[in-house]
Amino acid sequence: MSESLTLSLDAMGGDHAPDMVLKGIRIAHERHPRVRFLLHGNEASLAPVVNRHKTLKQVCEVRHADGVVSGDEKPSQAVRRGRDSSLWRAIQAVKEGEAAGVVSAGNTGAFMAMAKLVLRTLPGIERPAIAALMPTQRGDCVMLDLGANAECDADNLVQFAIMGEVFARTVLGLDNPTIGLLNIGTEDQKGTDTLRQASAVLRESSLPIRFEGFVEGDDIGKGTVDVVATDGFTGNVALKAIEGTSKLYTSFLRQAFGSSVMSKVGYLLARPALNKVRMRADPRRYNGAMFLGLNGIAVKSHGGTDALGFANAVCVAVDLISNGFNDTIRGEFLKVQRASGLDAATLERAANG
Amino acid sequence: MSESLTLSLDAMGGDHAPDMVLKGIRIAHERHPRVRFLLHGNEASLAPVVNRHKTLKQVCEVRHADGVVSGDEKPSQAVRRGRDSSLWRAIQAVKEGEAAGVVSAGNTGAFMAMAKLVLRTLPGIERPAIAALMPTQRGDCVMLDLGANAECDADNLVQFAIMGEVFARTVLGLDNPTIGLLNIGTEDQKGTDTLRQASAVLRESSLPIRFEGFVEGDDIGKGTVDVVATDGFTGNVALKAIEGTSKLYTSFLRQAFGSSVMSKVGYLLARPALNKVRMRADPRRYNGAMFLGLNGIAVKSHGGTDALGFANAVCVAVDLISNGFNDTIRGEFLKVQRASGLDAATLERAANG
Repeated sequence: MSESLTLSLDAMGGDHAPDMVLKGIRIAHERHPRVRFLLHGNEASLAPVVNRHKTLKQVCEVRHADGVVSGDEKPSQAVRRGRDSSLWRAIQAVKEGEAAGVVSAGNTGAFMAMAKLVLRTLPGIERPAIAALMPTQRGDCVMLDLGANAECDADNLVQFAIMGEVFARTVLGLDNPTIGLLNIGTEDQKGTDTLRQASAVLRESSLPIRFEGFVEGDDIGKGTVDVVATDGFTGNVALKAIEGTSKLYTSFLRQAFGSSVMSKVGYLLARPALNKVRMRADPRRYNGAMFLGLNGIAVKSHGGTDALGFANAVCVAVDLISNGFNDTIRGEFLKVQRASGLDAATLERAANG
Repeated sequence: MSESLTLSLDAMGGDHAPDMVLKGIRIAHERHPRVRFLLHGNEASLAPVVNRHKTLKQVCEVRHADGVVSGDEKPSQAVRRGRDSSLWRAIQAVKEGEAAGVVSAGNTGAFMAMAKLVLRTLPGIERPAIAALMPTQRGDCVMLDLGANAECDADNLVQFAIMGEVFARTVLGLDNPTIGLLNIGTEDQKGTDTLRQASAVLRESSLPIRFEGFVEGDDIGKGTVDVVATDGFTGNVALKAIEGTSKLYTSFLRQAFGSSVMSKVGYLLARPALNKVRMRADPRRYNGAMFLGLNGIAVKSHGGTDALGFANAVCVAVDLISNGFNDTIRGEFLKVQRASGLDAATLERAANG
């Protein structure tokens, strides 16, 4: 399906920017020929390349920005000093209604801090969360928060669970997605007070959701639930531990297949099947962490990604927009909050918001 | 190397106990023929099997215990009611000097709670930690805490780091092991106050250790450091996320190799090499989580393990004892604490302990 919409891109963010951004656009263009791009960054370096390629010239509009937020800049600093940066300008274009969403492969912390400040959270949501799809034995699950909030209270966790549920329903198209809270055991008494409180709220509320209680780290890969909700510290460590294990396996396999002539021949015969495994577990296929809970679609691509990964992040943004994710989450969130009667103050703010 | 020592075993703990314990002893006996075992559990069911096997009869002494701690029993309950259990009796035998260490595949929480109560912590250590070896691209690393302490303060983290360092030196035989604190970024300002405090203490102290600062989840698989120190919540989630990913990969590969005749032939050719990968990543090879910081060696085997896994846990206990781990850690810990001058009260307690 090809949508007619405009995306705002930070052309300068990421280790291999702006090259991989420009190449990524060409890949994304093949999948979504009607999507247009506002390309924020250094005009002197972007314009010549865009003008050289017919496709790029057709779908891109270059918007000059002087500054670049570096990968190691502190979010607080970036927010203060980076108002002329490609990242800030790219986000600003969403706020001003010029684009439906923004994609950057730059500094995650700065992206999140700026997006929070410029776009603000949806009514009823105190803090946005970073979400991503994870491969499991039963298809994909969505996990959040993956690092936006190192410390969370029970309300935050409940909101993440609900956002994840709406995501699974509207974007993944699941009928009755199941939710689990990540913990160190499945029994009710396990974990921290915060987790037990969040679990009690989700369990005792009259929300029309399927809360399955606590899940453990290995339940992510098993696909025990469709939505894994957790604080940003635990989620970030789990996500990266999974990525590290995936790389470890790949390197073990590479060594194994190279270890003898027989294994090399075996590899050649099994290669098509093995390539499918690589695709299924390829982090680039899952590239594109979504910032959920903001007044606007924001997708973060891996900093070290290549053009294919960046194109996938662009497609994630297109999916979110095509599915009307934010409108749905806005409506659904008010509905579930009303049903739960959890937080009168938040509800009131939401109603007036 | 075959050591002459006695281990105390909980014969009733674990999903497949006591069968896998008895079979595990026979496997462990081949590697360590001089090790003897005190077998705690139901005499009526244990004695006939032991008497039937020459080897078992030779190396085992059955000690009757009426009770069994079930897998879902709360630790607090088990401690109050389980004094006649095979688990309690097995630990008690270490305290009384009849055995140098204890191994159980039973309820982890109950095992830890009982071991803390019966054996108590080593001088200078406030809380014991669960440690295990993790496969990495650069050989094994040791990670702790894996679940004994859901919430930790900075002192706990510092003590875990030091215990891990001593473990890496004395048991893994590494000359100058490197230490990292698990966090959601490597920059100094990342993470929680607790982590920043622990990092400052480790960095600014004059300890003769190689503290490399913060590491992230993917650094575990990369083998960036030899010791990964973390709180029990994060460590448990990371450990299980890694196990889950390992299983996910195995299932993806199984499907891939079964997907066509060519891949099946490829599998047959590459099988010897692939079996090596399985061995390298086999959780049973790493079976045996160690409770570090107690006055006695305690090793927890996976609850669902088979005889081979249980035998590996037994061998881990033999290794810890043969290397005089606890004596070394006791001495080293006092030394590094003196060098650091971190905590006068703890030091004093240690000196008087």
